[in-house]
Amino acid sequence: MAKRKVKKVSEDALSEEISSVELNEKDARTAGAIHNLSQSVVKAVSRLRDPQIEIPSRALSNILYNERKRILEMGKKSTSRSLFNLSQAKSFMQTLLLSSAVNQLLRQGKTTSIRGLYYTTKHKIPGSNEQTFNDQSESDPILEDLEVVLQSLREELHLFAEKRGEMAGELVLVDRGDEIDCSRMGSGGYGIPSIVEPDVIQFKKCKAKFVLHVEKGTVWQRFNEDRFWEKHHCILTHGGGQPPRGVRRLLYRLHNELKLPIFCLLDNDPWGYYIYSVIKQGSINLAFESKRMAIPNAKFLGLRSYDFQRCGLSSSVQIELNDKDRKRAKQIAEYPWFAHKKAWQKEIDLMLKNGFKLEVEALVSKDISYVTDVYTPQRIAARDWLD
Amino acid sequence: MAKRKVKKVSEDALSEEISSVELNEKDARTAGAIHNLSQSVVKAVSRLRDPQIEIPSRALSNILYNERKRILEMGKKSTSRSLFNLSQAKSFMQTLLLSSAVNQLLRQGKTTSIRGLYYTTKHKIPGSNEQTFNDQSESDPILEDLEVVLQSLREELHLFAEKRGEMAGELVLVDRGDEIDCSRMGSGGYGIPSIVEPDVIQFKKCKAKFVLHVEKGTVWQRFNEDRFWEKHHCILTHGGGQPPRGVRRLLYRLHNELKLPIFCLLDNDPWGYYIYSVIKQGSINLAFESKRMAIPNAKFLGLRSYDFQRCGLSSSVQIELNDKDRKRAKQIAEYPWFAHKKAWQKEIDLMLKNGFKLEVEALVSKDISYVTDVYTPQRIAARDWLD
Repeated sequence: MAKRKVKKVSEDALSEEISSVELNEKDARTAGAIHNLSQSVVKAVSRLRDPQIEIPSRALSNILYNERKRILEMGKKSTSRSLFNLSQAKSFMQTLLLSSAVNQLLRQGKTTSIRGLYYTTKHKIPGSNEQTFNDQSESDPILEDLEVVLQSLREELHLFAEKRGEMAGELVLVDRGDEIDCSRMGSGGYGIPSIVEPDVIQFKKCKAKFVLHVEKGTVWQRFNEDRFWEKHHCILTHGGGQPPRGVRRLLYRLHNELKLPIFCLLDNDPWGYYIYSVIKQGSINLAFESKRMAIPNAKFLGLRSYDFQRCGLSSSVQIELNDKDRKRAKQIAEYPWFAHKKAWQKEIDLMLKNGFKLEVEALVSKDISYVTDVYTPQRIAARDWLD
Repeated sequence: MAKRKVKKVSEDALSEEISSVELNEKDARTAGAIHNLSQSVVKAVSRLRDPQIEIPSRALSNILYNERKRILEMGKKSTSRSLFNLSQAKSFMQTLLLSSAVNQLLRQGKTTSIRGLYYTTKHKIPGSNEQTFNDQSESDPILEDLEVVLQSLREELHLFAEKRGEMAGELVLVDRGDEIDCSRMGSGGYGIPSIVEPDVIQFKKCKAKFVLHVEKGTVWQRFNEDRFWEKHHCILTHGGGQPPRGVRRLLYRLHNELKLPIFCLLDNDPWGYYIYSVIKQGSINLAFESKRMAIPNAKFLGLRSYDFQRCGLSSSVQIELNDKDRKRAKQIAEYPWFAHKKAWQKEIDLMLKNGFKLEVEALVSKDISYVTDVYTPQRIAARDWLD
C-alpha cells in the first residue's frame, strides 16, 4: 500500500481547539479515552505509519459465557480498521467522525439520540458526491464499535435511546437535582430515563426490600393501582416488553448499590424466558455491556408452565404455541445458563408439552387482583422461583 | 322469528346483586347508562318482545365534519343488534357481557386494560364448544360499540390503554391524591397516564403560558434538557408518535380548563400533518370522542416545507418522498379542514414539489440546541404558525 507524505500534526492540536464546560469525573474518563484514540492516529500519521484502529470483535464467535461471573462477555478477538485500505477507509473515517461528535457532546454537557448523532455527523464529503453516512443503519454499528473501542456504555457517550418503562415504590431518588419520591407519583409513575448513570441519578432513601419487575405497562398499572409496593415494601418496574438499556442499568444499580433482590414476573412464553435471560446474563448484541447491566442473581417468579394447573385457570386463556415458539423454546433451553439447570429444563419441557403459552394478564380471569393479592405474594412468601 | 316463553325477571334484579364501593358522580353516571341498557333488555324480555340494542353506526358514511364546531362527529345513523337474529345473537351477547364486566369494574373501583377485559369475559359457553370471544380482535370492536351506546369515553369505562407520552413544565397537578410538580421531574418527566379524567387528575397550579407538544420522546428530551419550559414558561408534552388517548385528552383539558394555547412541533411529512389533524379535529375511528378530545384551535408550528431553505439546512438531511407519502399528502390536502385553507394547500404543495420530507431531528445538523434556542422561540415570537 502506498504511503503518502503527510503534514506533521501537533499531537495536542485536537485538545486545544475545543472550548469546554468543566467535565465531571465520568465524562473526563470518556473524553480521555477519545483523546487516546485520536492521539494514536495522530502519532501514526506523524511517524508516517498507516493509521489504524483496533476494534474488539462483536461477532458471535467472540461472545463467551463466563461461568464464574455468570454473565456473557466478549472474548479477546479484534480486527483492525485501517485508513489505507480501500474496504476500510470509509468506516475508519466514520469511526473518527463519530468519536469527534461524541467528544463535542461531552464538552457541551449535552446529550442526544442516536438519530440526532446521525444527523449531526451526516454531510457530503467536499469535492465528492459521497455522504459520510447514507442512512442511520450505517452509523448505528459504527457507534457500537466505538462503544467497545472506548470501553464506554452508550449512555457514557451522552447518547440516549427512546425510553420506555416506569417505576413506583418506596424509593426516593435525585434526578438532575430534582428529588423524586417514587411513592408519590400517582397513577403515572416515574418514567425511567434512558441515561441513569450515577452522575444523573442518585438514590437518596430506600425503604424497599425488593424489586418486582413486570413485563408490561398494563400489568404494572394493576400492581400500582393496588398499591402493591406499599403493602409489600418494594419497588415496581416495567420495561414495556424487552426492557431498554436504561431500565436494565437501573435494575443493575438497584441490585448492586442498594442490595435489593430482583424478581421478574413475565409471560409464560419463550419471549418471557428470553427477557429474563437478558436481564440475568446479558444479550449477545450488547455482551460488552453485561458487566454493567447483567444481574446473574435475578429471580424468575413466573408465570410458570404449571401455573395453568396450580392456579386452576380456564382453558379459554390458553394461547397455542406456534412453530416459531417451539423452536425458540428449544434454543433457550440450550443456553449455557439454562442447559444444566433441571428446574429450567422441566419448566421449558412442560411448556412444550402443554402446547400453549400464558400471559400474565390471563390471571384476571380468576379475579382482577388475583395477581397482586394472591399469586405474587404467595410465590415470594414460599420462595418459589426459578434461578 | 320465533318468540319463546321466558321467565319474568325482576327489573331490579341486576342492581341488587352487586356489592359496590361508593361511586363518584362520574362513575354513577356511567353505571346509570349501563343500568338503562340492561333495563331495556329486561323490559323487552318481560314483555315477550325481541330484546335488541340500538348502536350508533361507526361507519365512515356516518362520520361528518361539523364546520361550526370544527370537529369530526358521528351522524344519526344507527343499526340495531337483536338477540333473535342468527347473525346478531353472538354480538348481542358479547355487548351485554362486556357491559356487565365494565359494571363490575365500576363497582370495584378498579381499572384494567382492554386485554384484561378480554380475558375477564372470555370463557367457554356452558354446554357448547363456543368461546364468548375467540380473540381480542373480536372484543375490541364490541367495546367501541359499547362506548358509543353508553356515550362514554373508554376511560370512563375504567379501561386503559398502553400509555405513552410524557410531560414537564410549569404545572402542579394532583394524580390520585399525590401532588406532582412537573417542573421538578428531572430527566424522566411525568409519564402521562392513560386515564386523565378529572376525578383522577386535578390541576392545582399553573404558571405556564402555553403547551408545546412535540412528536417524539427524543425531541422532548432535547427540550427538557435545555429546560425550555422554564425559559419560556410553558408545558412540554410528547405522545411517542401519534399521541394516545390519554395524551390527547390531557391536551384537551389543558387547553379548555387552563385556557392554554397548544403548539405542535411535528415532522415535516404526511405523518406529521396527520398527527396534527387528529389533535385538531379528531380521528375517524374515534369520531364520537372528538367532542372531548379534539382541539380545533391547536396550532402547527412546524416543521414547515420551506424550513429547508429558511433555516439553510444541508441537503444531506433530506429524506426522499415515496409514492405512499405522495398519495397520503394528497389525501390530507383534501380533508375538509385543510381543503379551503390556502396556507395549508401551499404547505403541502411545497412538500410535494420539494420531493423530500424533514424530521425535527434534522435541525441538529445546524446545532444541537438550534431547535430549542432558535427555531421554536422565533416561530412563537413571530406568531408564525399554521392553523
